[in-house]
Amino acid sequence: MNALTRQIDSTLLDHYDAVRSHTRELVAPLSAEDCSAQSMPDASPAKWHLGHTTWFFETFVLAAHEQNFAPFRPEFRVLFNSYYHAIGERHPRPQRGLLTRPGLDEVMQYRTHVDNRMRALIAQADQAAPWMPLVVLGLQHEQQHQELLLTDIKHLLSCNPLWPAYSDQRAPAPTSTTPEWMAFEGGLIEVGHQGTGFAFDNEIPRHKVYLTPFELSSQLVSNGEYARFIEAGGYEDSSLWLAEGWDWRASHHLSHPIYWQPRPGGGWDEFTLSGRQALNLARPAIHLSYYESDAYARWAGARLPTEAEWEHAMSSGIHPAKWESGQWLEHAWQWTQSSYAPYPGFRIAEGAVGEYNGKFMVNQYVLRGSSVATPVGHTRLTYRNFFPATARWQFSGIRLARHV
Amino acid sequence: MNALTRQIDSTLLDHYDAVRSHTRELVAPLSAEDCSAQSMPDASPAKWHLGHTTWFFETFVLAAHEQNFAPFRPEFRVLFNSYYHAIGERHPRPQRGLLTRPGLDEVMQYRTHVDNRMRALIAQADQAAPWMPLVVLGLQHEQQHQELLLTDIKHLLSCNPLWPAYSDQRAPAPTSTTPEWMAFEGGLIEVGHQGTGFAFDNEIPRHKVYLTPFELSSQLVSNGEYARFIEAGGYEDSSLWLAEGWDWRASHHLSHPIYWQPRPGGGWDEFTLSGRQALNLARPAIHLSYYESDAYARWAGARLPTEAEWEHAMSSGIHPAKWESGQWLEHAWQWTQSSYAPYPGFRIAEGAVGEYNGKFMVNQYVLRGSSVATPVGHTRLTYRNFFPATARWQFSGIRLARHV
Amino acid sequence: MNALTRQIDSTLLDHYDAVRSHTRELVAPLSAEDCSAQSMPDASPAKWHLGHTTWFFETFVLAAHEQNFAPFRPEFRVLFNSYYHAIGERHPRPQRGLLTRPGLDEVMQYRTHVDNRMRALIAQADQAAPWMPLVVLGLQHEQQHQELLLTDIKHLLSCNPLWPAYSDQRAPAPTSTTPEWMAFEGGLIEVGHQGTGFAFDNEIPRHKVYLTPFELSSQLVSNGEYARFIEAGGYEDSSLWLAEGWDWRASHHLSHPIYWQPRPGGGWDEFTLSGRQALNLARPAIHLSYYESDAYARWAGARLPTEAEWEHAMSSGIHPAKWESGQWLEHAWQWTQSSYAPYPGFRIAEGAVGEYNGKFMVNQYVLRGSSVATPVGHTRLTYRNFFPATARWQFSGIRLARHV
Amino acid sequence: MNALTRQIDSTLLDHYDAVRSHTRELVAPLSAEDCSAQSMPDASPAKWHLGHTTWFFETFVLAAHEQNFAPFRPEFRVLFNSYYHAIGERHPRPQRGLLTRPGLDEVMQYRTHVDNRMRALIAQADQAAPWMPLVVLGLQHEQQHQELLLTDIKHLLSCNPLWPAYSDQRAPAPTSTTPEWMAFEGGLIEVGHQGTGFAFDNEIPRHKVYLTPFELSSQLVSNGEYARFIEAGGYEDSSLWLAEGWDWRASHHLSHPIYWQPRPGGGWDEFTLSGRQALNLARPAIHLSYYESDAYARWAGARLPTEAEWEHAMSSGIHPAKWESGQWLEHAWQWTQSSYAPYPGFRIAEGAVGEYNGKFMVNQYVLRGSSVATPVGHTRLTYRNFFPATARWQFSGIRLARHV
Repeated sequence: MNALTRQIDSTLLDHYDAVRSHTRELVAPLSAEDCSAQSMPDASPAKWHLGHTTWFFETFVLAAHEQNFAPFRPEFRVLFNSYYHAIGERHPRPQRGLLTRPGLDEVMQYRTHVDNRMRALIAQADQAAPWMPLVVLGLQHEQQHQELLLTDIKHLLSCNPLWPAYSDQRAPAPTSTTPEWMAFEGGLIEVGHQGTGFAFDNEIPRHKVYLTPFELSSQLVSNGEYARFIEAGGYEDSSLWLAEGWDWRASHHLSHPIYWQPRPGGGWDEFTLSGRQALNLARPAIHLSYYESDAYARWAGARLPTEAEWEHAMSSGIHPAKWESGQWLEHAWQWTQSSYAPYPGFRIAEGAVGEYNGKFMVNQYVLRGSSVATPVGHTRLTYRNFFPATARWQFSGIRLARHV
Repeated sequence: MNALTRQIDSTLLDHYDAVRSHTRELVAPLSAEDCSAQSMPDASPAKWHLGHTTWFFETFVLAAHEQNFAPFRPEFRVLFNSYYHAIGERHPRPQRGLLTRPGLDEVMQYRTHVDNRMRALIAQADQAAPWMPLVVLGLQHEQQHQELLLTDIKHLLSCNPLWPAYSDQRAPAPTSTTPEWMAFEGGLIEVGHQGTGFAFDNEIPRHKVYLTPFELSSQLVSNGEYARFIEAGGYEDSSLWLAEGWDWRASHHLSHPIYWQPRPGGGWDEFTLSGRQALNLARPAIHLSYYESDAYARWAGARLPTEAEWEHAMSSGIHPAKWESGQWLEHAWQWTQSSYAPYPGFRIAEGAVGEYNGKFMVNQYVLRGSSVATPVGHTRLTYRNFFPATARWQFSGIRLARHV
Repeated sequence: MNALTRQIDSTLLDHYDAVRSHTRELVAPLSAEDCSAQSMPDASPAKWHLGHTTWFFETFVLAAHEQNFAPFRPEFRVLFNSYYHAIGERHPRPQRGLLTRPGLDEVMQYRTHVDNRMRALIAQADQAAPWMPLVVLGLQHEQQHQELLLTDIKHLLSCNPLWPAYSDQRAPAPTSTTPEWMAFEGGLIEVGHQGTGFAFDNEIPRHKVYLTPFELSSQLVSNGEYARFIEAGGYEDSSLWLAEGWDWRASHHLSHPIYWQPRPGGGWDEFTLSGRQALNLARPAIHLSYYESDAYARWAGARLPTEAEWEHAMSSGIHPAKWESGQWLEHAWQWTQSSYAPYPGFRIAEGAVGEYNGKFMVNQYVLRGSSVATPVGHTRLTYRNFFPATARWQFSGIRLARHV
Repeated sequence: MNALTRQIDSTLLDHYDAVRSHTRELVAPLSAEDCSAQSMPDASPAKWHLGHTTWFFETFVLAAHEQNFAPFRPEFRVLFNSYYHAIGERHPRPQRGLLTRPGLDEVMQYRTHVDNRMRALIAQADQAAPWMPLVVLGLQHEQQHQELLLTDIKHLLSCNPLWPAYSDQRAPAPTSTTPEWMAFEGGLIEVGHQGTGFAFDNEIPRHKVYLTPFELSSQLVSNGEYARFIEAGGYEDSSLWLAEGWDWRASHHLSHPIYWQPRPGGGWDEFTLSGRQALNLARPAIHLSYYESDAYARWAGARLPTEAEWEHAMSSGIHPAKWESGQWLEHAWQWTQSSYAPYPGFRIAEGAVGEYNGKFMVNQYVLRGSSVATPVGHTRLTYRNFFPATARWQFSGIRLARHV
């Protein structure tokens, strides 16, 4: 949280408005019922995302820094707390879907109420106000929840045998190209964030890492390639799997990615945010767990990259065209073999926001890049996303690596 | 299902309209979100009750007997099937709360659509139409779901820390009277339904039972009496409990009825359909499991009645005033010590409706009477309600019995 | 427990010696390791049975009535307590298999030690000693554990892929006869124990029951008949099963009785106390759960008897030859459709032995008769055995009934 | 598995005899019952360890390289397979404690039988026999199981309320010294095994790592220090714990290390291999999970070291006296914050032994050093032990690190 600074390319107020209104746009296609349901403990209702991201500003900024602060509704302090023990009690996570009250309307009123007060606070502030970094953090936090809102809605709708669509909009067909191995010499390189732009506490300090020579694929593994892995018996060959992954696969009776559906007569359909569709073989395979990604890599005679390899390669001039278009990083988060751990010299921030990252640094694996669901402007080469090895409902795919 | 006959006191069409519109009235105070959530696998969303009761008429009556039948939406055949294997697949019960589509509006359109067709069918029929008994059964079925809709909504709202009220309407204060032991000589008596009025298949045949002399309390156990049981350490004394109940109590960390809440400073509050209220000590204690009821009875030096004792006593002229008012049977279903079992000569009906009752006749206990949530006109002295010994979310209470 | 009286056909001391030494004979074929393992929470290690039956005499008789009583080893009071809360703490049931100390040798010394003291106590006592009924109860209790010891060992050995035999002794081939329906008129009959012989508290008081006319099969269902049920798709037809049984079957992936094994090339083997054997089609089918028994009965167009029907039929002069030989009741406990409930006027005994029966009277079903594993002399027409509907490891079979 | 070579300081035959007979010595204090029981799925019966280590030689060496090979008993190929899918079926791990047959005697005969044949094979072989590395691997494997045998027996005996002792031998009192921070400059260093001595495949290749400056404690955290953490409320302060550790602690109701027992009147006892003893405050705290170790470190204002830091520090001349005595590394495995992952260039061996290490490289944390239970001669600076973050039954402790 040190190194949090004002955005360069827009005033904070404009940025606040842009991020907050984007969240409203994301829920526009959804009914109140869609927004209220929770499909599994790992996911949250859209309404809860709407409330929680607002709670962040009310709790960490307004309650501490607004004159004559009064909460919109005192009970929300508990209801919309995610995991901040320092703030007090939390509503149990697996029961978020039972909160039919407050209704969606009231949560939208809560957003408007907090937005009005935040706008007033920001408008009056001078640039050195001590809470400015918290506003920036709150907006980054909201952008994270924008992606989660989409992954969670996709999972919810996939549980409905009517296969409803979130939106009729279809993603454009990707330009399929042949993957190539890109070689890197490694040596003593540096990773981690530096400079004055925003970064989470887990991205710093920038530090040296020694890499042996390696190669990285220029493309993510495609649906077509992954389908060949399935056809080759990949889900039935224990020698390809981590022991824990093999047992997980067996106990959940898995034989394909979570949103794939065998099509009568052969081939695959896929559940998408546009409903059930024929599987596009040219697109990157997504919604894969770490276990599946690791098994695929072993089958392909390769491995997953480390996060240092990934960051070094991506910052070595790869893909300049994509950088500029803002669509670099190719549609899906990319599993690395690096467990989520503190960088050398990592320090936890004081106060409740210190619970933001550090306490999750065990039994999680780092994903790098970004996805089709990541909000524009929220991507960063040093960004460290992380999920348990079992997670399948994220937009997560595979970029292969290998030793030379 | 034999002995199903036309209602006497109203035309079938009037009765159909009355029952169906009462269901709509029950959900009037609820939002779409309230109607869509499911608080536990044993409970169903209100929207599902609305759809399932409609599905019953569409599937068992219209699909079989309407000319040019076409389903409102074919997927509903699976979506709103509860447990009828003969009808085919069912949506998994614990996932009913994930069906955010169809929305409440569409389910209401479904109701209107089916009602229009049912009204047309009934209006044209002559009295001997073979599906008439199925319509009567469907209305009885809907009345059962009317009570479940209330118990399920109460449970859902109780999971919300905001303690929302279903309705502002408060039940009138009961006239508290001192319980008396009413003596019965027993002997060879008869129980079970007879005559031409409607009864479920589990209420027949009427048959002889031999009863030894017994006594029954004139009143249900009150909240005040049950509070004394708690104060006397009833939840901590293993000698009062069935072994299975004692373990259940321990594993769920129970020390009071499900909707009771210790009030700061002493005494109890209770979650009600009108929100959180001070516990009314004069009212019958409700929402008790069989285990709790049995433990209370042992503590009180009594026992639960058998269902034959209960029915014999109630049909022996007890409470004539209450009979006439339609408010007899005192506000709460009454646990009996009788496991739910077939009457001698019980026969399962042919076809899908044969799954209505018989297949649940194991590990359930019979409750007799009715409750504040039972629709007017749905009470019957021979009625056999049944739930597992763990059930707490029903309006279930205690009437004590003892041997002479 | 009232009506406990001295045995008629032997002195108490002889009876004590006979029962106690029979337990030793039962474990003679077993190693110390065999005696120490526990295959599931419902079963106990043989060593625990040896200790617990001894604990009964030490705790209820010697500790209360021996002069200068000192326990063999004080820790055994907790270690070998089964479920008597009044005696204090118990070792957790699922962890009985972890008690490698005391070893089998020490437990045998414990038996010898207690036997010596019991013999001395009995020898000195006059016939009216108040603890005499407790000795008789203790011996009946030990006989119950003799049967459990065999069912538990059979289950343990069945978990070993080497299919070890408990004993080489093979049961003689039964004389197969064609089952006949035996008709009974019913009416007002009596069931329950009376007289001066021993009976458990759950068998009294004797009381009147009204029975409608019924028929009972002269034979238990045979392995051959049950195999035809399987071949006819009985395990795949939901209409034959109680709803709870159907779900239980599915979640445990069951398609045949617990000890049946499909033989390569067709037909069935069966795990027996003599190891794996070809299934004898003429013998009664055993080790069936209530769910399986009920489904079979429905498939056969019949039903399970009530316990009153069973007792009335058996006491109406059936099978006099078998009565005399002591081998009546045909090899297997017989499920009834009667849930385990108190007889009218049932009273729980004072003190710890009051926990013997009453507290299990919920969610259990009564079995009548006896089995090949029941000790000689422990059978009684009024005997009420009971197990949950899921129990498969007991010697339990099916006698069909039907309405006329 | 490359780089497996003949031991230098002894002939292979002597080494074989020494390792194999040490295993027998370890079980000498145990009864057949002690050797047969399994206290939890993570642990194995001592008898299973005895059989499995023998199975390793029979399966990987004799079956492949002995002329006229015939198995001691064919069923043992399945029974004593741990996790090698390439070998075929395995007996389910959680059911190892149900294998009362073969008895301990027969397993000891199995050992003798295989030892005789192995001795003959080794005696006749020339030094370049291709299976020699497998014998060395088998002995290293057996030494690993020697430690597991002790940790598993300790856990089993701890489940017995009689607190039995494995042995009367007490460990000598340690010389308590004040911990100091030892500083290391870091930089580009090397870790991993090199040279001709034995190492597991997970210890190679040796490779470069860049370390920032750090400090390491000269001592392990003592029982006294850990007790102060408890007294300071360490188990009740969520800010000290990883989120996953906090939930794990809560769901298991933990408030102290697994073998600590509050002493009536204050202070702590500890269950040891010599039974229950007063806690020795000067000794290293052991049997700690990763979660507990990490929480303690945070409380102490420090952190756990990485495995590279640990290896670099230990190989930088630390503790030369202890090195020579063979008792260096201070009594307990030491958690590192490094998840168990492949070294750069790691290659999985061909064939079944390729399953030895690589497939466990997920959701495990590396421990370094050795423990009081590690056999003499089995310690190595580059050794990588690994367990899940929840593991408490290993001899695992804490060495603190911190950034400068």
